[in-house]
Amino acid sequence: MTPGPGVHRTPLPKGFLASGVNCGVRRYRPDIGILISEIPAVTAGVFTQNECKAAPVRYCQNLLPAENIRAIFTNSGQANAATGAEGIEKNMMMVSAAAKNLGCETSQILVASTGVIGVQLDTDKILPAIPELVQRANDSAESFATAILTTDLVPKTVTDTVELSGGTVRITGISKGSGMIHPNMATMLGYLLTDAKVTKTYAAELVKKVSDVSFNMISVDGDSSTNDCCFLMANGASGIEVKTDTDLKKFEAAVERVAIFLAKSIAADGEGATKLIEVEIKGADDLALAKRAARGVTLSPLIKTAIHGEDPNWGRILARLGAEQVPERQLEQMSLYLQGILIFEKGQPVVFSKDEVKVLLKQVLVKIEVDLKSGPYSAVAWGCDLSRKYVDINTEYS
Amino acid sequence: MTPGPGVHRTPLPKGFLASGVNCGVRRYRPDIGILISEIPAVTAGVFTQNECKAAPVRYCQNLLPAENIRAIFTNSGQANAATGAEGIEKNMMMVSAAAKNLGCETSQILVASTGVIGVQLDTDKILPAIPELVQRANDSAESFATAILTTDLVPKTVTDTVELSGGTVRITGISKGSGMIHPNMATMLGYLLTDAKVTKTYAAELVKKVSDVSFNMISVDGDSSTNDCCFLMANGASGIEVKTDTDLKKFEAAVERVAIFLAKSIAADGEGATKLIEVEIKGADDLALAKRAARGVTLSPLIKTAIHGEDPNWGRILARLGAEQVPERQLEQMSLYLQGILIFEKGQPVVFSKDEVKVLLKQVLVKIEVDLKSGPYSAVAWGCDLSRKYVDINTEYS
Repeated sequence: MTPGPGVHRTPLPKGFLASGVNCGVRRYRPDIGILISEIPAVTAGVFTQNECKAAPVRYCQNLLPAENIRAIFTNSGQANAATGAEGIEKNMMMVSAAAKNLGCETSQILVASTGVIGVQLDTDKILPAIPELVQRANDSAESFATAILTTDLVPKTVTDTVELSGGTVRITGISKGSGMIHPNMATMLGYLLTDAKVTKTYAAELVKKVSDVSFNMISVDGDSSTNDCCFLMANGASGIEVKTDTDLKKFEAAVERVAIFLAKSIAADGEGATKLIEVEIKGADDLALAKRAARGVTLSPLIKTAIHGEDPNWGRILARLGAEQVPERQLEQMSLYLQGILIFEKGQPVVFSKDEVKVLLKQVLVKIEVDLKSGPYSAVAWGCDLSRKYVDINTEYS
Repeated sequence: MTPGPGVHRTPLPKGFLASGVNCGVRRYRPDIGILISEIPAVTAGVFTQNECKAAPVRYCQNLLPAENIRAIFTNSGQANAATGAEGIEKNMMMVSAAAKNLGCETSQILVASTGVIGVQLDTDKILPAIPELVQRANDSAESFATAILTTDLVPKTVTDTVELSGGTVRITGISKGSGMIHPNMATMLGYLLTDAKVTKTYAAELVKKVSDVSFNMISVDGDSSTNDCCFLMANGASGIEVKTDTDLKKFEAAVERVAIFLAKSIAADGEGATKLIEVEIKGADDLALAKRAARGVTLSPLIKTAIHGEDPNWGRILARLGAEQVPERQLEQMSLYLQGILIFEKGQPVVFSKDEVKVLLKQVLVKIEVDLKSGPYSAVAWGCDLSRKYVDINTEYS
């Protein structure tokens, strides 16, 4: 996998183009973007569970899954959530303008928005910039990935190829964070693009399945956004079909790899974050419990601040596991590792070198592993530390 | 109600004594305390739902409710949680020492502990100090209230009287916060003392009922402690029984008032807090939803930081209500008030003076009111803002 951008360029799958420009909602930064498939693409999506759904989320939910999508338009800075009838109307104005410029039907255009909730879209600025946006489209992901950012520090792109029985296909992932992430105000958006040929039904199953082990396992702040969505667009431009069982396995693994890479990038670039926290719960007798416990640890402000302070205050981890209803019996037989060092087992603290662990905690990736020794299930969740910078960013956001 | 301490002195109900001294676990601050009833008291308690329960919590749960309790011993600085068999043994050593000094049975002594999880109790320091602790007992709450503090800035005491058919009884409340509060490491402890005469069954019902609308409706950080407990001790020393229906109503209202006063004091003194946030959800068609939504708003770091910044970024409130599964239809008909100013109604933002609201947000008490216009249920929850100071305190705790 080739992460981008930096010195890298993130190539798109065959038949895809991307673009991003500044329309004036933000002062200088690119603030509108578009992903275009030159031919109609099979497209599926997963959307926020929040009952307060943004206008573009409701719009896309009605259209997907579909077999004829041509583009996903995205604006940043304004979320178009809690904006009533005016928000729905403005969403449709952007759809119409994009369709006109691409020469397709409005039903072939998807929209995602991200930014402040409860302000009406600046369509006076957005609409006139759409022709230039479409004209500038090219075959790498960077301009789009930059245009969709809010409080993110870095664009998040990744591209990978996978050998199937009929030949090689490409999968490109693009996403953004970095606040209201429990897949939330900055809002998480994910785009998975491929030139492989798949069916609508398979695309819908796959995007749900990979989101569950990637985007749905990250948390920056425990706040679920009004605008979260993840799209999978497959335009078949490679001419290569995902057909044999081996193909399905390989393809699914590749899409999952791309999605997890993006999910970790969002957590690592969480608002104010200096560290990526990876929590693995093993040996659980229940998958739901493993997931809840892993996410619970990434959510705890006490654990997040301790890790920020590079402080091996493991009692907070145990307390959170208990609060997530990991049964007492399992807490008493479990093993807890911090950066690979055994800290707690058999219901008792282990004598360990606090200084050694403190040094290991200086690393950017902090790993917490828990083995409940009760069953075959495991789950991994990702989060980030909680810093003064997080408070500063969110004290001053609107 | 007379809050203490400051220039006030918080009198205890008849037949109660309190004490707090330094035994050396902490450098100078009082770190062990005891509440004594001169005669056996009816006592009930509610305890943390966390599966990782501290040794003293399990010990008290086994004993309560009871009719013959003489004292609650409490130590601060060490939580005696995640301490295995050694923790259970050290808890019993403290029980025995207290019983010996009071001349009663060990089964008449309760224990609460608060502090760092996963370190063994310093009984070498605690046990020799117990005789002095008992000798110094007097009839006001201050010394005990101070000895149980951890990251709290102020002791939390309150005392009130209520006129019953047979005469006047007194109710005194003492509690502590101020982190791992979602009724957590600092740990919430609550003590409700009265000289009224009540039955064991009634005491058990009452402590559960009042905790549900007070301590169980506060959150500082969303982390549930291993050590939370709230006790109600009624020694009947006033000779006055709670008997008529009017008595029951008056008494319950008074105990609830005391518990809510303490709960709000804990939230207001949350780690790093500068503001008390009160969230009221009205017009809900389901009590559980109203409670979850109210608590959800107090939990959101995005809302907590916005309030810290005195920023009327109300979109975050709407997003959290949606994330707590307040149905879309209700979100579209609800009214949202911030410091009494209408901000959002009928699914659309209201034009309001941002400057006026900013000025109102400078107050220490910030009120968020939501009317869902769907049913008769309401709930109130309390929390606090999230500041850089919170991060500093918890980066350096252990």
